[in-house]
Amino acid sequence: MSIYKERIKDIQSLLKEKGLDGIIITTPLEIFFFSGFHQDRTILLITKNEVFAFLPKMFVDHFKEKVDFIEIITYDNLNEEVVSKIEKLKYKKIIFDPETENYEQGKYWIKNGLKEFKGLVKSLRIIKKEQELKNLKKACSISAKTFEIIKPKIKEGISERQVALEMEYIMQKMGASGKSFELIVAFGANSALPHHETSERKLKKNEAVLLDFGCIYGRYCSDITRTFFYGKPNPEFTKIYKIVEEAQKAGVKHARDGILAKDIDKICRDHISEKGYGQYFTHGTGHGVGLQIHEEPYLNTKSNSILKKGMTVTVEPGIYLYGKFGVRIEDTIYISKNGAEVLTK
Amino acid sequence: MSIYKERIKDIQSLLKEKGLDGIIITTPLEIFFFSGFHQDRTILLITKNEVFAFLPKMFVDHFKEKVDFIEIITYDNLNEEVVSKIEKLKYKKIIFDPETENYEQGKYWIKNGLKEFKGLVKSLRIIKKEQELKNLKKACSISAKTFEIIKPKIKEGISERQVALEMEYIMQKMGASGKSFELIVAFGANSALPHHETSERKLKKNEAVLLDFGCIYGRYCSDITRTFFYGKPNPEFTKIYKIVEEAQKAGVKHARDGILAKDIDKICRDHISEKGYGQYFTHGTGHGVGLQIHEEPYLNTKSNSILKKGMTVTVEPGIYLYGKFGVRIEDTIYISKNGAEVLTK
Repeated sequence: MSIYKERIKDIQSLLKEKGLDGIIITTPLEIFFFSGFHQDRTILLITKNEVFAFLPKMFVDHFKEKVDFIEIITYDNLNEEVVSKIEKLKYKKIIFDPETENYEQGKYWIKNGLKEFKGLVKSLRIIKKEQELKNLKKACSISAKTFEIIKPKIKEGISERQVALEMEYIMQKMGASGKSFELIVAFGANSALPHHETSERKLKKNEAVLLDFGCIYGRYCSDITRTFFYGKPNPEFTKIYKIVEEAQKAGVKHARDGILAKDIDKICRDHISEKGYGQYFTHGTGHGVGLQIHEEPYLNTKSNSILKKGMTVTVEPGIYLYGKFGVRIEDTIYISKNGAEVLTK
Repeated sequence: MSIYKERIKDIQSLLKEKGLDGIIITTPLEIFFFSGFHQDRTILLITKNEVFAFLPKMFVDHFKEKVDFIEIITYDNLNEEVVSKIEKLKYKKIIFDPETENYEQGKYWIKNGLKEFKGLVKSLRIIKKEQELKNLKKACSISAKTFEIIKPKIKEGISERQVALEMEYIMQKMGASGKSFELIVAFGANSALPHHETSERKLKKNEAVLLDFGCIYGRYCSDITRTFFYGKPNPEFTKIYKIVEEAQKAGVKHARDGILAKDIDKICRDHISEKGYGQYFTHGTGHGVGLQIHEEPYLNTKSNSILKKGMTVTVEPGIYLYGKFGVRIEDTIYISKNGAEVLTK
């Protein structure tokens, strides 16, 4: 059975379990998740027993080439066509996700008898299937290799932007379809800004270099950060690097099925705090990675998530000394029964 | 005055005009539009007389470097902090845009006394200021030049993906920060699929080549499509190409301040229909281009928009002969008082 058919079965089971009649899927990413077809102006209606795709006429031929297990309905007015189909089917409990519809659109669905219900698709997306893991692994390994290729090319006088451009090109040459977010290349004091925007700044001798990047392979994202010192590291950099590295390794080491996401955050944070730099670790420890670069679960002090087998998350503590330099080390890891596998290698 | 201060003044005038006390700006793109700072987990509150940015602590240093005309408020809980500030200010009519908030979040704002009000920011974004036009022009000219560079490199045996990768690299070498959407490179019968996904398909002799692409410069997008025949064009291709070219030129020629967007669509569509291919022009004629690749106004049969001086839109009719080939020709144009300027040149 194709992964898409499997997922439709999965959500149909969930619908039955929750006593619901069906769900509408309205974002291109989640339409892809259930059909392999990534498209806007399209809605999937998945009921307990059926699946329909509401498509603009111009997409029909294309859709048919890719998908043979979903009934196609074309429309003049998308919303009206969906509502009219639901009425014909006489279903009472068709849901939409209030976190993926805008307020205007949500009001329309409510007015037309649909119900709001949160997180059903999210609960499927958070656990990665074999084929997803394959794509994630590939995206991660491309990124890790890219660091090995780019590192010796980073020399005095090169600009942050040049480095970012070359990295993106390398990743795509290895088969990535693109970058998974705007690459962060930060030299010197720029590395102390966790969300620095890659600039025309040129590298000087004896400066920190921070690269936070990732690519997309088969629509799945990778996320990795590497920091190093160009030239002869000063003792402060060496000290900070070691603390972050220890914190990151401890986080990865403890990640496994059943542990609280916030406990991984605590392990990293406690180590950095014990060394006296707690106030300089100004962000959460990690996030899920999948079709989106940031998705559930989040690994931070407030998270209620439990890590489960099949999740892919980042572990990325950092210390940022404003005006001087910052160090962040990040891997994307796969959670399994008794530990975690680093994918960005 | 900086463009951002100007825009804040613009929206404050709009607020007063509509009898409103303020607006919250919650998407990274629109936060950028008003501050030059592109960031998530951030909200701007623009009242009739004040501007506040609610920022995670980790962004404060960075924000201060870029923006000096907005008061910074850090938060533990973003939503609560915003609501509490509004209460302190004793404003009654603070609005959110129901098209940019998700349903869940919209309900929260409504529960806490905010009102929904559509399209205020959109009405500013649709008319481009001088500095925006400069970026749009640059993005468009990079794309047009890229076509000149890539065309002679497109030869038998090259894959669609290789072409897309090279084009992206060329655009970035010329200063673009990236592509404005997934480039469509379509060979042969693939060109008949308006939303074809660039594949590993290799070019053969005597085939149509369709390139639909664009880049981002200074956060502004460009959009251009070029179609040509690799080898000796057959009479059918030559005929179809001419029809599309005439339709596109007629559309551009009539675009000017004051004309209905749907009239431009009608001009293109009528020409194609008169030639007997109306049923093969399966999409709208164009869309606005700016911070987003697709934004208002839309040029299609149902549009109620009037083209105004300062808008940038695409004109992109096409004819798609499924199983054979498709032709689309697209330019991004700037609407002025007495006509339109083609930017993708």
